[in-house]
Amino acid sequence: MTTSTLPVPDFTARIAERARRMNASAIREILKITQEPDVISFAGGLPAPELFPIEDVRRATDAVLTRYGAAALQYSTTEGHLPLRRWIAGRAGIEPQNVQIVTGSQQGLDLLGKVLIDEGDVVLVESPTYLGALQSFQPYGPRYVQLPTDDHGIDVGALEAVLKAQPAKLLYAIPNFQNPTGRTLSLERRRRLVELTAQYGVLVIEDDPYGKLRFTGEELPGLYDLALEMAGDPEHSHVIYCSSFSKTLVPGLRDAWLQAATPIIGKVVQAKQGADLHTPTLNQMIVTELVDDVMPRQIEIVKRAYGERARDMVAKIGEHLPAGIHHTTPEGGMFLWVTLPEGIDTQPMLARAVVRKVAYVPGTPFFALGGGANTMRLSYSSATPEQIDTGLKALGETIREVLT
Amino acid sequence: MTTSTLPVPDFTARIAERARRMNASAIREILKITQEPDVISFAGGLPAPELFPIEDVRRATDAVLTRYGAAALQYSTTEGHLPLRRWIAGRAGIEPQNVQIVTGSQQGLDLLGKVLIDEGDVVLVESPTYLGALQSFQPYGPRYVQLPTDDHGIDVGALEAVLKAQPAKLLYAIPNFQNPTGRTLSLERRRRLVELTAQYGVLVIEDDPYGKLRFTGEELPGLYDLALEMAGDPEHSHVIYCSSFSKTLVPGLRDAWLQAATPIIGKVVQAKQGADLHTPTLNQMIVTELVDDVMPRQIEIVKRAYGERARDMVAKIGEHLPAGIHHTTPEGGMFLWVTLPEGIDTQPMLARAVVRKVAYVPGTPFFALGGGANTMRLSYSSATPEQIDTGLKALGETIREVLT
Repeated sequence: MTTSTLPVPDFTARIAERARRMNASAIREILKITQEPDVISFAGGLPAPELFPIEDVRRATDAVLTRYGAAALQYSTTEGHLPLRRWIAGRAGIEPQNVQIVTGSQQGLDLLGKVLIDEGDVVLVESPTYLGALQSFQPYGPRYVQLPTDDHGIDVGALEAVLKAQPAKLLYAIPNFQNPTGRTLSLERRRRLVELTAQYGVLVIEDDPYGKLRFTGEELPGLYDLALEMAGDPEHSHVIYCSSFSKTLVPGLRDAWLQAATPIIGKVVQAKQGADLHTPTLNQMIVTELVDDVMPRQIEIVKRAYGERARDMVAKIGEHLPAGIHHTTPEGGMFLWVTLPEGIDTQPMLARAVVRKVAYVPGTPFFALGGGANTMRLSYSSATPEQIDTGLKALGETIREVLT
Repeated sequence: MTTSTLPVPDFTARIAERARRMNASAIREILKITQEPDVISFAGGLPAPELFPIEDVRRATDAVLTRYGAAALQYSTTEGHLPLRRWIAGRAGIEPQNVQIVTGSQQGLDLLGKVLIDEGDVVLVESPTYLGALQSFQPYGPRYVQLPTDDHGIDVGALEAVLKAQPAKLLYAIPNFQNPTGRTLSLERRRRLVELTAQYGVLVIEDDPYGKLRFTGEELPGLYDLALEMAGDPEHSHVIYCSSFSKTLVPGLRDAWLQAATPIIGKVVQAKQGADLHTPTLNQMIVTELVDDVMPRQIEIVKRAYGERARDMVAKIGEHLPAGIHHTTPEGGMFLWVTLPEGIDTQPMLARAVVRKVAYVPGTPFFALGGGANTMRLSYSSATPEQIDTGLKALGETIREVLT
């Protein structure tokens, strides 16, 4: 037995091909730059922490530990805490067997990618789309096709042309107050999207973390609701629904869920067994304790606050940003999207913005196949009126500097 | 817009190839059969819930919510709660950058599979090995090679022959009180295993959920410790260490960790971003609150209880089971392994055992490539003396019935 130095391992050579396709999240790297304390950051997408129902979580934890005792801290089933699955199923008009609890929506997307995407499968995504979904799907080797969008979401005429041109496995969409644009898909387009994808045999993943946070306008049925209504049965629906308690309660408990036909749920259960056995037991019980009384109240509080902040930000864009700039006007959620004149690149501009003590996320990372150099995402969810005023003034100055 | 019925989707045709390789856990299906209330089950592998420090968890949650407020319920970093990473690193003699928090060891195994295993890569496993690891790795398409074992763990002579015969990517091993056998790898073999794998350029995943639960015999250095000592630096170690707070505190919080060189940790961070963003914030803070005072006390309580139960089970095997049966005598952990005479198949025998109100897990599912028809795993961790006596009497009768 020797204690001499071992050969130095060549780790790079041992990384799997799929992991070579992974990159550090562009946003994550940007957030690091912009986290200096005196920078006003519209870059993050964090729910407003000052609104969190901390005392309710404390009370719920206490109640759950008293009621369930050791069972709250023991291993539990992969499918999830049955009372929580029942509550979700009841609200959606489906059965608990159509509901799977996941550790954050992000895990829902990862498991769906694992279960559905073969190397080279065509996955249709909005242009732009949620960066985290691209990250979840990426290791499974999808071939992305970007769907053109406008202020009412996906262009369904263009969708039909894309479906005619090639077979696709999946369409991934965020119909309500999309991340990153804040746009909402119109009702007419929702119906057409559901019909077209059913007709062409394409499964749809509807990602809906913000749906309950509508602060203006009329609530619209989701893609899952429409497919359920048209198909008449959750077992015949080609739409898979993904949502979360992160924006309606708190994100740090990591409680979210999927709704789908049982052949999909069954495979997701098997994938989740290998991925993390189950979502933490205590956390699922805490959420169950809060959904009936605290969550509706919390949703009202959050909607009011985000609505005020969104209106404020839209007003200050008008006041402080130069003319000729396009922005979305969200009806809910946490984000809006700004399009600057062609020729401006928001990625190098970020350094100048940070010098002026303001930060945003450049738009390009949200495009699966690139583009959108002149776009940016702004989050208003955790900004004060002073930050919105000062930050947008600084952003306006930055843009004027680049334009001259 | 029509509301006619949509075409029924063909879900089976849309499941990805990797997901077709997934199966429902054999154990999970067995546990369903054996969960009738009057069956004495040695099948589960659950930590004893009557020992859980429920009041400590309540107090810790309270303290954490008071100290951190909203930050305990907000999104947090993918790498994990820094004070917890520091604590783990300090104990291991490494840096926090070598530590990644994961949502249960199971997630650690899944992320390592995702980051390291290319389709067709040779993965060396003990024969038998932990079923959950096989489930985690399976979607990534490994080619398993089974390493022969005896009562002192992996046969390192046979390992050398295997390494000479073919290039391998990974060796997965549980050196302490292995699941399912309860066996411990001897010190001499540990050293040889670390040297051989380093020499042949094979990465090692050391899975160590039970290491702190040694109730008899002398503590041995882990493979990670030995590699660190021999390599002199965590950045040069080819061993990746995986452990958990599930057996030393409680499993339901799903807190575990990996230790590895930074090129591995870096890729795991990227994979985890797509997999679940981060492990629940509150849960990591609760565990951090408990590691210094509660956990050492808890480990003593659990060791004492499991030690008594293991000795009791070994005694009752001698008393109630027919002669000619081999069993392991664990020095820690939660399981022991019984080998019946050749020709007996413990899978069909289980139905007879359940009729006699006792249950175990047949051994075959723990073999990556099959085998072990005459073996079974018994768990003593959550059994009372009465259950051990009555259950083993019933098991003895079942075996005698099959032997005649």
